[in-house]
Amino acid sequence: MTALTAGATIGILGGGQLGRMLAGSAAALGFDVSILCPEADCPAARVAADHVMADYTDIPALLAWAEGCDVVTYEFENVPVEAAKALIEAGHLVRPGAKPLEVSQDRLVEKAFLRACGIATADFAQVDQASDIAEPIKAFGGQAILKTRRDGYDGKGQARLEEGDDYQAAYKALGHAPCILEAMIPFEREVSVIIARDRAGESVCYDLPRNEHINGILKRCVVPSDLSDEVCERACAAAKSLVDALDYVGVLALEFFVLEDGSLLANEFAPRVHNSGHWTPEACATGQFEQHIRAVVGWPLGPVTRFHDVEMLNLLGEEATVPPEVLAADGVLTLYGKRDAKPGRKMGHLVRRRS
Amino acid sequence: MTALTAGATIGILGGGQLGRMLAGSAAALGFDVSILCPEADCPAARVAADHVMADYTDIPALLAWAEGCDVVTYEFENVPVEAAKALIEAGHLVRPGAKPLEVSQDRLVEKAFLRACGIATADFAQVDQASDIAEPIKAFGGQAILKTRRDGYDGKGQARLEEGDDYQAAYKALGHAPCILEAMIPFEREVSVIIARDRAGESVCYDLPRNEHINGILKRCVVPSDLSDEVCERACAAAKSLVDALDYVGVLALEFFVLEDGSLLANEFAPRVHNSGHWTPEACATGQFEQHIRAVVGWPLGPVTRFHDVEMLNLLGEEATVPPEVLAADGVLTLYGKRDAKPGRKMGHLVRRRS
Repeated sequence: MTALTAGATIGILGGGQLGRMLAGSAAALGFDVSILCPEADCPAARVAADHVMADYTDIPALLAWAEGCDVVTYEFENVPVEAAKALIEAGHLVRPGAKPLEVSQDRLVEKAFLRACGIATADFAQVDQASDIAEPIKAFGGQAILKTRRDGYDGKGQARLEEGDDYQAAYKALGHAPCILEAMIPFEREVSVIIARDRAGESVCYDLPRNEHINGILKRCVVPSDLSDEVCERACAAAKSLVDALDYVGVLALEFFVLEDGSLLANEFAPRVHNSGHWTPEACATGQFEQHIRAVVGWPLGPVTRFHDVEMLNLLGEEATVPPEVLAADGVLTLYGKRDAKPGRKMGHLVRRRS
Repeated sequence: MTALTAGATIGILGGGQLGRMLAGSAAALGFDVSILCPEADCPAARVAADHVMADYTDIPALLAWAEGCDVVTYEFENVPVEAAKALIEAGHLVRPGAKPLEVSQDRLVEKAFLRACGIATADFAQVDQASDIAEPIKAFGGQAILKTRRDGYDGKGQARLEEGDDYQAAYKALGHAPCILEAMIPFEREVSVIIARDRAGESVCYDLPRNEHINGILKRCVVPSDLSDEVCERACAAAKSLVDALDYVGVLALEFFVLEDGSLLANEFAPRVHNSGHWTPEACATGQFEQHIRAVVGWPLGPVTRFHDVEMLNLLGEEATVPPEVLAADGVLTLYGKRDAKPGRKMGHLVRRRS
């Protein structure tokens, strides 16, 4: 395909805040957006030219929808692999493809893939029954995290274990699902690389944010991260290996733990724009949402020059329902248009300059 | 009304690029947007939650539409005054109201209103027949511009006249419409004040851009304008008088001619966001589109701090259809999603940093 031009339609699988912000950037470049999402009143549908309400497993509906799209992308990593595959088999252009979904949806496959790319990770072991835990937890030094291989996010589907704990109970609490046991990492910081790769194979990394979590949910990003240039370069080189191995087109986020000695252990990646890149539209020449759109429509990437220091604060639950006067007094406010401010739910974010 | 909060619906009369960019800013603050516009495939409708296709003179349709809106605003100045009045009479909140439309839609009323606010303008005279031209053109020094009182934009509906020209032919060429004759201004530059005023009566002005026109169409804005602080302050004070007199809520643009001696003559105002403010989202803490939304939903205004020097280039007609690689190489590109690149039509714009 040649590069798409204004007036073409970008199909997005998923209707959450990431789709909403992608749709905003697509519109700014003159594109139309069509959302496929099973929810009637999802945030992205309300800013898109079209919305098809269908389940991601409804292949006939997906194929009919894709007939009206010039390219299809996705805004969340739990789109069924079969959906992406069916679209590709029918001749539709899906960027970044089915493989990144396949790899990232299973923590065990993901960790193995990262290692195959030469990227260090925490030690891990496959857990198909409670009795698979005792031996590796000892090898990992007596502490580990048990995670379901699939469907965990924001700290859900996880349990910390110490040697001698009731492994049966822990495994049962995770629904006897196939699991991965990961060694505990005595990490100093968490950082993420937001990388974009275009169809010609060129890639660019944004400056690395330092990510602060509360209860497993990202709360704050600070840029720059205070990591040395050398560490940042290693993180970016690892991210480049990953996107090259996936022949990736679009924006991807790779999360790392940083140890005291500066060594990096990759935790996981998200084949999409990412919460830890929400500061980029305000602080950089090209934000992550525009960058993803550029990549998927076949344009070259934009520059990622960062113009100033910055922090991004997630607004969770009721934090987004305080009087707007308060919220808007300082920094650039983005709210996602979600109807329900459940506790811990990501409702918006605030980007502040730091000088 | 108290300030609206995220989830409320903002109705916009008009579906062009200004509505599209307003809708983008409204979405970023968590609001839903409903567009009323008679065109099926207008640029704003494709980024809005809802679109009602109706004529602006179809009062029952307007009233039914407004039932679903928490506040109504407009994105172009030729919305019929009767439409705004009918909405207000039915109890709907319309910001910035009917008066700014009433005044700005008639160049004669507009000039008289500006003068009543103590704002200098070019000399002018009312023309209801060709024979009304001879006397004032002599008084104006032998040169003047004949303009229809209504419906002119981007240099349309205008004719330059010199003393002794065929006034009958000129008046006929403008369709024998009610006209205004304006003295020619030997101006050095054109500048505009983009001013925002909130419901509490607080107002802020953006830095003044210098505006360069080609064939009556804005081509380029440069900020700063190289005007002295004193001239800028006078221009802003004039704009403040105007918005206060109109009890205006929202963003308004007031255009001036600047004479060699630094004196200012107001040309016209637009009761809406304005092409000469398209650099503000990239260069300022709060862009004009967000500012207008803040004002109409009852929020306090955001800061207008400008972070860097900037220029804005309009992309007219085919200029927006060159390969995107070329367009996007330098600066922030915005395209309006218009289907037809007619010559001279505003298709997008490019904002570039100047350091």
